[in-house]
Formats: sequence, C-alpha cells, structure tokens
Amino acid sequence: MLRQSSMILPIRAHGPGLYDFTEKACAFVAESGIEEGILTVFCRHTSASLVIQENAAPAARRDLEAFFKRIAPEGGQYEHDDEGPDDMPAHLRSALTQTQLSIPVRGGKPVLGTWQGIFLFEHRRNSPEREIALHIIGE
Amino acid sequence: MLRQSSMILPIRAHGPGLYDFTEKACAFVAESGIEEGILTVFCRHTSASLVIQENAAPAARRDLEAFFKRIAPEGGQYEHDDEGPDDMPAHLRSALTQTQLSIPVRGGKPVLGTWQGIFLFEHRRNSPEREIALHIIGE
Amino acid sequence: MLRQSSMILPIRAHGPGLYDFTEKACAFVAESGIEEGILTVFCRHTSASLVIQENAAPAARRDLEAFFKRIAPEGGQYEHDDEGPDDMPAHLRSALTQTQLSIPVRGGKPVLGTWQGIFLFEHRRNSPEREIALHIIGE
Repeated sequence: MLRQSSMILPIRAHGPGLYDFTEKACAFVAESGIEEGILTVFCRHTSASLVIQENAAPAARRDLEAFFKRIAPEGGQYEHDDEGPDDMPAHLRSALTQTQLSIPVRGGKPVLGTWQGIFLFEHRRNSPEREIALHIIGE
Repeated sequence: MLRQSSMILPIRAHGPGLYDFTEKACAFVAESGIEEGILTVFCRHTSASLVIQENAAPAARRDLEAFFKRIAPEGGQYEHDDEGPDDMPAHLRSALTQTQLSIPVRGGKPVLGTWQGIFLFEHRRNSPEREIALHIIGE
Repeated sequence: MLRQSSMILPIRAHGPGLYDFTEKACAFVAESGIEEGILTVFCRHTSASLVIQENAAPAARRDLEAFFKRIAPEGGQYEHDDEGPDDMPAHLRSALTQTQLSIPVRGGKPVLGTWQGIFLFEHRRNSPEREIALHIIGE
C-alpha cells in the first residue's frame, strides 16, 4: 500500500563548496522501507543549493566551484550586501542551480546513474547548520 | 488516507520581474486539507519561470533581476526574435532558472525556510496572464 | 485508487543538442492509465540534462545551444579534462539546467503549456545511450 515518510536532515558545511550527502539520502530511503516511489530533496535556504554532479573526480568539483565564482563573482555590481560580499553571489549561485531534486526509487534505492552524487552546494563562508527536507512516497 | 488535489493558478504580471505567490501556494495547500505530503508548482510557459529566493530584501530581488539581464542580455547574437528583442533572452533566463519546484509539506504547510519565498520570474515586457499548475499529494 | 508506475526510457543522441521526447513521456503517462497525478522525469547522467523549452521554433533551440556554448565554453580554465575538451563544459551546462522535472497530470496528460516541449540536452560529442527514468503516481 502507498505510504510516505519525511525528515529534516541537518548538514554542517565548513565553508563554500560541494558536500556529498548521497549516502544519507539513500539511508533515509532504506529506513522508510519503500521499495518503489519518488524521493524529494529540498534545501531550506537561499544561499545554499543542490546539484547532482560527478561523484568520482574531485577536479570536476573544483572546476564547478570555480565556474560559479566566475559567473556570479564577489565584488560585482550588487546593491544588496547586508551580510557581506558573499551574500548576493550566494543568492545568484543558488538561483542558477537547484533548490529541489526529485529522484525515482526502484528496488529500495534512488535510480541515480553510476556517476551521480547528490551534493549540497554551500555558497557562504560562515553559514549556520543547513537543513535539507527529505520526503518519500511509494510502497 | 493518501489523496491528491490540483488547480491552475493564474498570475497577472506587469512587466519583467519577480512576483511572490507564496501565500497563494500556501492557501492551496491549506484548502486541500492535506497535512503531510508533497506540493508541486509548475510554470506552463517558456518565457517565464520560477525561483525560490530571499523574501525579505527588495534589493536582493533587484540584484537578481539585474544579474539575469547581464548574463542573458537583450541585443545578444540571437537568430530567434519573432516576438521582439526580449523574446530569446526570456527563453534563456527560463532555462537558467526553474520551470518546476516541489516542496515537502508538514503540519499543513510547505517546509520553506524562514527567508524563502516562491516567485514567478516574468521575463517579458508584454505577457499574457501566466498559468501556474499546482498539485499536492499526501494525507 | 492511487497507484504508481515507472520505467527507464533509453534515448540515443547523435551529438550535442536538444532532443524532444515529449511524445514518449506522454505515451508513458497514457499507458499508465493514470488520469490525474504527477509525472517525474529524471536524467541519469551528469553530462546531459533536461530543459523544458519552445517546441516550435528551431532557431530558438539553436540560440539556446549557442548560449550555453558561450557561457560554459570549451577551452576554459578547467583542471578536469579526463574525457576531452567537452567533458567539463558538459558538467557545467548540466548544472545550469535541470537533472529532473516534475509535471502535474490532468485528463491523462502532462499539463504542459502550448509551447512547451520536454528536451534531453546532450552536451557530449560521443555519448553512450542515455537513460531517462520516468515515474508517475496518481489515479
């Protein structure tokens, strides 16, 4: 019978960058006991975001971080800087990536491809603990 | 028992910019009577899009609008301009942001963070009324 | 009564560009027999992605492809190039667009707007067959 489950996953980032939480998301799916369904991952912030990216090569992640620093740089022509020079770039990098991802679940696991990992993309230097809302529905 | 509900929400934009419809999305959730589930918001257009952004500082929204004007400018090297100079930039800015968002619902409310608002991002100067499809499933 | 269905849809791309698979997604919905619900489309790759875009004008699609070549160019300052010069740009263009889309279903069809098509955005010159996971829940 169809059912659902949800939780808030806290993640502590240590400065800007990509933080892989694929295993934690998979553990939530496993604990739900749901074999087939749909998993949703939602970031409750506007200065941190989500991306699904290459899980193998650290150089690819460094390039990704460098790219977003170039297209949404600090020291840009921003009116809003209440929380410092990394404030507005954080919002822009969040808008350009994802706040939410939904992934089908089959055989008790998200159907991620071989090279796909789920990452929190932290954009602030000094950020509070981040909260990721997880939800699954299925059977 | 799990159930679902859906509707089409019309939004009238007055020129390019961000239009907060968080309250309308929350009202749809409340009216559904669903306490725990997943809300999906879908924009039925390719020249307007969705973003979750800072709901407090108007300056942050102005910076966001200015940023997308810079990276996907009018007067670019576009082949497609059937509907004028703001036609192709509208498609690009839509592709760079979101057409759809799904947000877990707990206690009868979307689990948005304190500073998160749901915005229609209108990219055209003269647009028809926009349609946002809302869907919720849960119990 | 609520139920769900899922499948893996293979797509063979022939070089970089946009590949419309709206009809295949609609056929999956029709075959499920679900009249009202939510369809999720998930790309199992980090060097190909998804976009909902203009389904009518080929020039708009060419402009979109050209735009992403400009903002995430080959020959950039990349550390990661294990699989050649189109490797890292592919990851960046994927991060800037979508890995997943969810679309409400009404009357047995996704509620796409008149001008919306669902596209695989292939970023690599020589890519393996791509896999799109489809999932629907509803009744």
